[in-house]
Formats: sequence, structure tokens, C-alpha cells
Amino acid sequence: MLDIDWEKAEASISGEVLSAAVEALQDVLGVEHVKSLPGDVDVLSRSTLPQSRRPSAVVYPSTAEEVAAVVGIARRYGIPLWPCSRGRNWGYGSATPVVGGSVVVVLERMDRILEVNDELAYAVVEPGVTYRQLRNHLEAKHPELWCDCTDGTPQGSVIGNALDRGLGTTHYADHFATLCGLEVVLPTGEIVRTGGGVPGCKTWHTHKWGVGPYAEGLFSQSSLGIVVKAGVWLMPRPEAFVSFTFDLARPETLPELVDIIRDLALTGVVTSAVHLINDVVSLAVMSQYTPDQLRRFSRLPEEELAPMRAHFGIARWSFGGGLQGRRAFVRAAKRELRRRLAPLGRLVFVDDRTIGLVRRLLVWRQNPLWRGPVDWAVRAASGKSPEMLAAAPEIHDVLKGVPSDYFVRHAYFKSPLPKPRDAHPDRDGCGLIWFAPIVPMTGSHVRFMVDLCEAEFKAFDFDFYVALLIQNPRSMIVLTAIFFLKDDPVQCDRAAALYGSLSRKTADAGYQSYRVSTAGMTTLSEKNPEFFEMMSRIRRAIDPDGVLAPGKYGFR
Amino acid sequence: MLDIDWEKAEASISGEVLSAAVEALQDVLGVEHVKSLPGDVDVLSRSTLPQSRRPSAVVYPSTAEEVAAVVGIARRYGIPLWPCSRGRNWGYGSATPVVGGSVVVVLERMDRILEVNDELAYAVVEPGVTYRQLRNHLEAKHPELWCDCTDGTPQGSVIGNALDRGLGTTHYADHFATLCGLEVVLPTGEIVRTGGGVPGCKTWHTHKWGVGPYAEGLFSQSSLGIVVKAGVWLMPRPEAFVSFTFDLARPETLPELVDIIRDLALTGVVTSAVHLINDVVSLAVMSQYTPDQLRRFSRLPEEELAPMRAHFGIARWSFGGGLQGRRAFVRAAKRELRRRLAPLGRLVFVDDRTIGLVRRLLVWRQNPLWRGPVDWAVRAASGKSPEMLAAAPEIHDVLKGVPSDYFVRHAYFKSPLPKPRDAHPDRDGCGLIWFAPIVPMTGSHVRFMVDLCEAEFKAFDFDFYVALLIQNPRSMIVLTAIFFLKDDPVQCDRAAALYGSLSRKTADAGYQSYRVSTAGMTTLSEKNPEFFEMMSRIRRAIDPDGVLAPGKYGFR
Repeated sequence: MLDIDWEKAEASISGEVLSAAVEALQDVLGVEHVKSLPGDVDVLSRSTLPQSRRPSAVVYPSTAEEVAAVVGIARRYGIPLWPCSRGRNWGYGSATPVVGGSVVVVLERMDRILEVNDELAYAVVEPGVTYRQLRNHLEAKHPELWCDCTDGTPQGSVIGNALDRGLGTTHYADHFATLCGLEVVLPTGEIVRTGGGVPGCKTWHTHKWGVGPYAEGLFSQSSLGIVVKAGVWLMPRPEAFVSFTFDLARPETLPELVDIIRDLALTGVVTSAVHLINDVVSLAVMSQYTPDQLRRFSRLPEEELAPMRAHFGIARWSFGGGLQGRRAFVRAAKRELRRRLAPLGRLVFVDDRTIGLVRRLLVWRQNPLWRGPVDWAVRAASGKSPEMLAAAPEIHDVLKGVPSDYFVRHAYFKSPLPKPRDAHPDRDGCGLIWFAPIVPMTGSHVRFMVDLCEAEFKAFDFDFYVALLIQNPRSMIVLTAIFFLKDDPVQCDRAAALYGSLSRKTADAGYQSYRVSTAGMTTLSEKNPEFFEMMSRIRRAIDPDGVLAPGKYGFR
Repeated sequence: MLDIDWEKAEASISGEVLSAAVEALQDVLGVEHVKSLPGDVDVLSRSTLPQSRRPSAVVYPSTAEEVAAVVGIARRYGIPLWPCSRGRNWGYGSATPVVGGSVVVVLERMDRILEVNDELAYAVVEPGVTYRQLRNHLEAKHPELWCDCTDGTPQGSVIGNALDRGLGTTHYADHFATLCGLEVVLPTGEIVRTGGGVPGCKTWHTHKWGVGPYAEGLFSQSSLGIVVKAGVWLMPRPEAFVSFTFDLARPETLPELVDIIRDLALTGVVTSAVHLINDVVSLAVMSQYTPDQLRRFSRLPEEELAPMRAHFGIARWSFGGGLQGRRAFVRAAKRELRRRLAPLGRLVFVDDRTIGLVRRLLVWRQNPLWRGPVDWAVRAASGKSPEMLAAAPEIHDVLKGVPSDYFVRHAYFKSPLPKPRDAHPDRDGCGLIWFAPIVPMTGSHVRFMVDLCEAEFKAFDFDFYVALLIQNPRSMIVLTAIFFLKDDPVQCDRAAALYGSLSRKTADAGYQSYRVSTAGMTTLSEKNPEFFEMMSRIRRAIDPDGVLAPGKYGFR
């Protein structure tokens, strides 16, 4: 029934069919929850990618039954759907579909926290629930429970990020791994509970595998169903928490550091996510291109970077993480980190008391009379800049799973706009593509991949932003960001070309991405045709008309 | 093409078709690797269940290509297959199929350890590789790596147990969770690698989710493919290891103990599997029915149990587990366990040195002159019997992941045969069915389930064997075993009836099993029809002729 031109990645839908479909959608959802006016669709079509596809309409169902009705209408009229939770998938395509003309299904109205179980430490949420909403709810009502978050926007969807297998900041960072018990609307309209159990099965949200085949994986990075409810495991508020930051003294010892981190992770000393970042990441968060730099550079040369690093007190490589648990464990972990890391650089532990002091210093600093002395004292005591001082509480908090708008402002590194308080890179026309290959966590694999990417970024004349993130104790995500000027067509094209080149070269070298932007999805199936053929058979069985998110993660 | 009478769970295959199929199988595999003589099939049809289905033949392919050829022949002749790794699924059906007349595909000849990666701590193995084989290989060639095992037979398959989502003994106990990167022969003969990556993808065995939908769950507790190769995560040999045993002073505080265990697990103090067992479990391992008891009882009354408990020094409830990791962490965990558990009973830590001493005592004890004094000293010092002394090294070792024949001898609790050195309950006609519901890990859920099961065991006049196992920090498996006299048709029928009653009553109360015996599979789909309908669609897409393991985990 669907008519998709895959060359152009466009669905052809006649005006009459679209009008009839929109009317049917309005009947079910109410006129106010179906946006099809060009202006409205324009707003929803924004993304930070060089190019993204334009949907034909955007709809906002509020219940599982409404979602099922939307699916039914899509099948009847032969229109592809593109579900998203809140559309904050910045740098990976935001709310825009792989196939132009799709109807985007935004689930933000389904934003209820349905249950929080204090004893068993889980919540049951709808896809519209954001990190901030969940955290605020826990702080107010269940202070003994913490949730994880990403260092992206607090407005991101807990379920959406987990289904795209995003990574957080604490020891619950593998978000997909913390999902347990899904309710899914299938592309044929049925509502299915995973886990095989009886209705209301008591372990639905405590026992991941259920009985029979474990099927929840099918709904991650996929187009097989629309998840409308999920259990999310929460962590008990730890007895003790400290965060740490480490500045690597000599960049050439990066592989050695990676091997140490693997060992610390494999032996359970470090269980949290680790963010091992290069200088450009730190600069992107704390600073941005000056208007003069914007005119002169597409990539900041070392002569520009060196003084910026010096000004902010930034190392070439630094990393941060959290230690949590019983007091004695945190003490033991601190000792172990000191023993292993001190020979390689500068390690600083930060606890809540220190952060209290920092916050007071930051208040004093608002008084112009005090600013000079405070900055001098901070530099003398820690070698850090005032900007680094301001960053400290943000880093400490996000490592506890408290979401923050602070880090996502990195998207404005190369923006002509000043960094806003409420970052919204789509709205503000920032150019950003994430490219995120994953490698075995060894010094040599990481070295190889960092070198490969760095050479590509250099060849295409873009700043090399790279963060190394523990996905699990055996694998590290090499998260790179391409920042480009979105209103410069030359930079847009070059950014897209760099993305394509990175995709090809890393695949040729035997690596895959942990997560892919809509721009990189269409070529995935070439890489493992047998796997994609198997999954395509499954897709045809579950979605005979292929209405749900065609093109997502390579599935047509 | 398949002709199955589901009422009888029998495939009807004519003699000519079977002969032709056997000939085709012999052509591919060699005559010696196709067993279809009644005597041979008899041996393979044994199980510890009250009733099991008889296969029509048993075949032993040695490569993925041979497995694919077997699948092709099954499709051509319309014969169902029942794959198993080594057939040691004792108490769950061993090597016998759900549908009589199936050809059993035993993968024991595929027993190569293809790779061990020291740095990244994983192995790549074939399904015939056993726990003992892997452990011996590591001890000889990779002493810095440990693998997990079960407390079942050392001859069990590492992959087979993991795919059935079996549970081990260490902090890598969730065996399915430690699988990473599968090679699978589909029912249509294609060979597929999971993970979506390029051939030879470097993270195939380090990054579980791959890219695109996570599909490995489809091959666990299922009939969707035959796994012929898998990555298995191994643990670095810990710097420190101690095991502990705890005897609960007052049985009525069991719920309190469960709540403490949950807290210890959720906060990362206890990361290993925990075996919280009742008196019958301990007695089943260390002792057995006397001939007199066998004549008199189907269930040992309290008057019989009490003196046995006293003789062996066994508590009503006891539990054991391992603490591993950096020395300081183990010290901290010991302190924490002492603080939490000491008020409820008697806690004993055991390290390698103590076990060395125990082994020496056990040697001295072989001298009749020393036996008396040693036993007296042991009782005086620890309150333990000589049999408990003999058990200590076995418990300590299995908690380190060293497989042992010791515990599986519990299957002979009610056998007229003495416990053999090489336990093989199928061979020796032991009667055993596992029934293993899973509950949220709270004192009240565990209390409810234990009481429910205990009442059923009592009503059906069988000993109540129950072990409570941590599946994850939020879920506990209530593993019960029905021991019965296999050559007593009345006990067989009653055991089957108890199993049926347990299945119904736990499901009615809102619980599911974590794993199911072939005897309990056929009714699974009634409990969540939408889920099973979705999975059936997937099955039809992957196995259009339905040749692979029809009836397994409820899928026809």
C-alpha cells in the first residue's frame, strides 16, 4: 500500500489522500492534536543535521488506544509513521523521519508516571516522561530513589533514550538494560505486553527475561512497535557518593589510561559511566567560537586551541565519573583510583561538601569586588579557571543522575548565537551530527579509532570533538560530534561528506556504531545482509504493510 | 508439511518417510552420527520426568553447515527437530522433545573453544563445550580468567544452559546476560550472525546490543534458531575471594532475611548468586532416603527430618554466596554482611586457607584412628557434622565457578541406588521435576510463594525442596524440586499432578516461571495470548514449515 521512492527517501502521498488521512486523524485525536499546516510542520521538521526529511503532519496521541487508532489510519491510507517520544534526539535527527512525507507521532502527551515501587526500586512510565520530570517526582515523593539521566537535555524522554540505547551518567547508564516490562502497540494495532506472563504478572517490571523468548530487544533501535509504557529500574540513593575528575598529564598515555579504566570496570571498582573527553569537548561546553573565529575558521587550529586550553585550565584529555555505594566501598574505590591513576595525571575527588563550598564561592564571585580574589584563590588552589569552577557543581550533579541544561550547550560551540539558558539546538539552527562508533575497550582499539576519526575530521576541516564512554566493561563508545555552521551550505555539505566518510572507513576497519543518526541508517543493511534479511522477515510478519518507521535502522 | 497431533503431542511420520530421512541424514553426517535403532533411541529418551516423548532418531552434526543440512532434510521430509546442546537438562526434560517423533539434534560434537581473549575477558565457544571443559581450559591456559558454572552437572553445556536462561553461582550467574555475539542456523538453513555489524565486527563479543534491534533474546527459551557459536563473558580472577554460609536461627524470620538480601543486592554489597535453601535441599545433597524410609514414606514427616537435621547439623534455612573483588571491597562486604546478618543467625566466612585446612582434616579423617577426634573437634568448633565438613570445599569451589559433581547428587535423594560418584539421573532412573516460579524479591512475595508451594507439596505428599536464588536484585527464583520414585506409577502420576497444580495455582496468583520443563511448556501460550500471537507470527516468518522444536516454550 505504501509508495516510497527510496532513491529520494520520499513517500508519495497525494493531496487528497493526505487530507482524508488528516481528517481521520483529527476525528480520533481532536483537531488540536493534528498539525498539518506548513508553518507547524516547519517547526517540527527542524533538526541539527545537514539535511532532514520533512514530515507531512505531526500528531499527538494521548493513550495507547489512540496510538493504535493512528496506526490503523496509517495502514488504511498508506502513510508511513515516524514515532518519537519527545523529539529531542538532537544530533541524531531530532523528530524528523528517514522517509519524507511520514506522519510524525509525538508521544509527549503520554507523560504519566504510573507507579514508583520504593521497595523494588523501579518506576513505570509513559514515553512522554522526561528525565527532569522523573527526577523531580522522585525528589519530591520518593527521596530514597535516584534515576539516571544523560548529559543531554533534561527534556529528553526516559523511554525514548532507552529504546535508542542511549547512555547515561551513573552505574545505571546502559539505559536499555534498565528497561523491564514493556507495553507495545504493534503496527497492526494490537497492544502487547512483553514477558510472556499472565496479565498483571508480579515480576513484569522486576524480571527482564520473562518466560519464553526475550522480545524487548526487538523494540530497541527498531521500527517494530510503539512502546507506550515501560518499567525503568531505579537505584537506591547511595549511602555515599563522590565524583572525580582526572586530567591526563601526557596525551600519549591515553591507551594506557584506557587499559586501566577497563581493568577498573571489569573488576567492579568503577561501575558508573565514564566520560573521557578531549579538549574540544571541554571547550565546547564552556566556550564558543568568537565572531572573529567564526569568520576565519571551520576548524580551530592548534594556535587558537592552545591559549583557550590555557585560559580555561583544560587538559588535552580528562575524565570524570562517580563512585557510589556503601561508605566503605566508596573509600576503597577512592584508594584504588588514586593508586592506579595518580602516576598518570591529576586526580581530584569532589563530594557534596566541596560542592557546597564551590556554590558559595560562585555566589561571592557575583560581587565584582570579590571576583578577582576568588578567581586568584581558585587558580592557586586547583589550577582551574572560574569557568571550570562553575562547571564543577554541574558535573557533580549530572554524575548523580540529576539532569542539567548545562552540557547540551556544547551544541552552540560554533553557533553565532550566544549560549542560551534553555538550549534548543533545533530551534536555534545549530549544526551538529553525532557519529558514535564502538570499539573493544583496549588502548590499542581506542587509539586506532581516535586516530582514524581525528584524521578524517582534519581532512574535512572540522574540530575534532571526542568523548570516550564506557558502554560496558568491554566496550567503549568513541562519541564524536561534527559541529558545523548550518546556514553555510558548504559546511553542511562537508559535514555530510565527513559523516559518510567516517561511516565507510570505520565499517571497513571492522567497527560498527552503537547508535546511528537518521542520516546514516539507510546503508546499515549492506553491512550484515543475512542479519538484516532475518530482521526484515520479522518486520514483514509484524508490520505487513510496512507503515511503521520505514528506513529506521536500515529496515525498509 | 508437518503432521502433528497436538492432543497426543506426537508427530505422525510414516515408516518410509522416516527411513528416507534417516538415509539422507546418514549421507550428510555419516552413518555413525545418526542413531535410529530402538535401543539407541531408548537411551536418549530417558529423562527424570514422569513422562517424556520418544524421539524417532538422534543425530550428531559437527559443523554449522551440517546443522544447516539437517534442517534442510527436516523440512524436506516434514520431520520436527529438537536441538539440544548436550542433553543434560535434567529435571526439565533432558534431551527429550515436546513432540514425540522429533529428531533430536545433539550438538555435543561441536565442542571447540574457538577463542579466549585475555584482555577483554571473553571466550567464543561451540554448544558442545561443557563447564568443566571451559574451566579446565582456562585453568591450564588462561589462569587469570574464571568462568561461571551451575551447581548442576559439570557436563552441562555453557551455551545450552545460557539459552535456557539458567542460573550460575558467581556474580556472572545470569548466564543469558553473559552471552554476547551469536552465530545461528535458522530453520530455513541460513547462517546468521547477530549484532548487525560487518563480518568480523570487532565488538561482536564485547557489545551485546550491536546496532539495530537486539535479536539475541529471540534465541533464548525459543525454537527460532540453532545457536552454533557464542561469545561468553568471563570474569577476571578476583584479587580476593571468600565464601560465606549463614544459618537462619528462626525460620519465621525468613521474610526479613529476604528483604535484607534484596537490599544487599540492590546496593552492590552482594553481587553473586545466593542460594538460600531449606533443610530438604541440604539433606538431599548430603543424605538420602534409607531403604526403610523408601518403603514407608513418599514424604518424610517432621519426626524423620528432625533427627536428620540434628545429625548433619543443618538449619531449617541456610544460605551461601561468594564475595569477590579487590581485597578492600571484600573486607568491606564482610563487615556489612556481619552487621546485617549476625542478629538473625550464624554467619561463617570461609577463605582458601580455611578450605586448605578442611581438606587436610578430611585426609586425616580417612584414618580410622583420627576420625573420632576430628569429628569431635569439628562439632565442638563449628557445630557442623563430618558430612558438612566434606561439603565445605565443594561449596567454596562452586561459588568460585568451579563445576562439581557433588551437588547434582541431590537427584538421588529418593533413589534406591546409592549416590554415585558420576551422577547421571537419567541413566539411573531418578525421578525429578524442577518447578521454578519467580517472584519479586520481597519478604512478603517469597513468603507467599513458599507457603503456596509447601502446601501443595504437602497435599500431594512429596518432600518440599526449595532453593531461593537471586535472579537479579529485584527478583528471586523459588526453585522447587519434586523428587519421586520413577518406577512407582502412582508416585509418577502424583508428581505430574503436583506439577500441574503448582503451574495453575502460581499462574492464578500472578506469577510466572523463570524456566519451564518440557512437561509444562504446552500451556504457556494460554497465559498471555497477545504475546504468544506476536511471537507466533515471528516464528512463522523465521520457520515457515515449523520444523524447529515445535511446542518449545509454547510455540506450535
